Amino acid sequence: MPRYRITIEYDGTPFVGWQRQAAGVSVQGAIEDAIHAFCGERVTIRAAGRTDAGVHATAQVAHFDLDRARDPFVIRAAINQHLKPRPAVVLDCAGTAADFDARFSATARHYLYRILNRRAPPALDAHRVWWVAIDLDAGAMAEGAAHLIGRHDFTTFRAAQCQASSPLRTLDRLDVTRDGDVIEIRASARSFLHHQVRSMVGSLKYVGEGKWRPEDMARALAARDRKACGVVAPASGLYLIGVDYGAHAGPGAGVIDDAEGD
Amino acid sequence: MPRYRITIEYDGTPFVGWQRQAAGVSVQGAIEDAIHAFCGERVTIRAAGRTDAGVHATAQVAHFDLDRARDPFVIRAAINQHLKPRPAVVLDCAGTAADFDARFSATARHYLYRILNRRAPPALDAHRVWWVAIDLDAGAMAEGAAHLIGRHDFTTFRAAQCQASSPLRTLDRLDVTRDGDVIEIRASARSFLHHQVRSMVGSLKYVGEGKWRPEDMARALAARDRKACGVVAPASGLYLIGVDYGAHAGPGAGVIDDAEGD
Repeated sequence: MPRYRITIEYDGTPFVGWQRQAAGVSVQGAIEDAIHAFCGERVTIRAAGRTDAGVHATAQVAHFDLDRARDPFVIRAAINQHLKPRPAVVLDCAGTAADFDARFSATARHYLYRILNRRAPPALDAHRVWWVAIDLDAGAMAEGAAHLIGRHDFTTFRAAQCQASSPLRTLDRLDVTRDGDVIEIRASARSFLHHQVRSMVGSLKYVGEGKWRPEDMARALAARDRKACGVVAPASGLYLIGVDYGAHAGPGAGVIDDAEGD
Repeated sequence: MPRYRITIEYDGTPFVGWQRQAAGVSVQGAIEDAIHAFCGERVTIRAAGRTDAGVHATAQVAHFDLDRARDPFVIRAAINQHLKPRPAVVLDCAGTAADFDARFSATARHYLYRILNRRAPPALDAHRVWWVAIDLDAGAMAEGAAHLIGRHDFTTFRAAQCQASSPLRTLDRLDVTRDGDVIEIRASARSFLHHQVRSMVGSLKYVGEGKWRPEDMARALAARDRKACGVVAPASGLYLIGVDYGAHAGPGAGVIDDAEGD
């Protein structure tokens, strides 16, 4: 069966999340329905990151198989036609190897978290940022973030409902930068625990407002206790912005275990 | 009477434009209603740029008078409270001189126009950009834009319904840059004719797709004829991003004549 890889952008606001649910419209469901509408095939698509409700993506990656080979250009255009007016689009579609797996072949996932740090709430960026009115010290947040880099037990920054078999993850990047009123946090790892990015960001907010010192991030991490975590940052500020695949991305090249996403 | 100056951000999508209309919700009307709701005063506010329906602002400036002096901080918070859930917020409020006029004291207006130039339609930036699927040459557009800089008769790039008494304007800046899929056009002038930015951008799109050569912008300008204009770019890509006031911004410091905006 021919396999296709697609790159997807979506505004997570109206969706119940990536994954199909009993009720509500998921990104996965909307795309599967669009594929069915244009070619009559019922497929299951699998994504690199199972984003939660309200989380956005500029470059989610997913794959699916069709019974019959079709022109990837036509697939892309047809899915987009049927996705309207939902705020999700396929940016790119290409045939791929039968052993490529969008989820298990991924070697790195990249997330961006955006905080709007000003007194006035967002107008243009409503549902696109976490609005924090209290002044945040991005320098202190960057200092705090550095304590989480590396391979650690991230139990503190893991949702209670996380299904991963191990809390061990290797965090390759957690950068905090400010550009005017916007604080951007960029996180990269092979995989993340459930709510890991939002838990780290929520704790960094405590550092930014002076409630925690930067080194309290290390203390929280060492506690290996969910109760040591700060607030969990809202979904609206989170974007899945990229997924890497090794040159030799066979099945399971990037597998650590069963759970990732945020 | 105490006078106040406010800076406003808004998503133009749901509004009929800046100016109060017989029907529909305008930004002006929403703010005037919010002021009335919090203090019972019926005021008329005047803005630097009377943006059209669908045009956005990150830093519109307006002024109004109150019968009774109030804390600007309280005014800002109260207006924002009453503006909810409309996508408009007052970023800043300050007392100002009695002869300050947001419209007539302005010495420069700055607009940004964003084109999303890729095959897939926008998901995250729906209603925030002009989506152009055909490949545009931003270099050629920049070359074409240079022909419009300076003091000219901009009749070609002026809406038929423009009420300005003169078509003469001095265009100080018209820069075209590309960052990935997004082409940004930045325009600055003391004042603009009605639809001037969108008319210039629509014509530059012709240059970008190769329908016009860069020097055809000079030809169109010299024609002084509305029929020589390219397409008028949609409102969704346009943002009023700043207004300058001279150090000595008395009434009419920036007056050229009665009409501006885009």
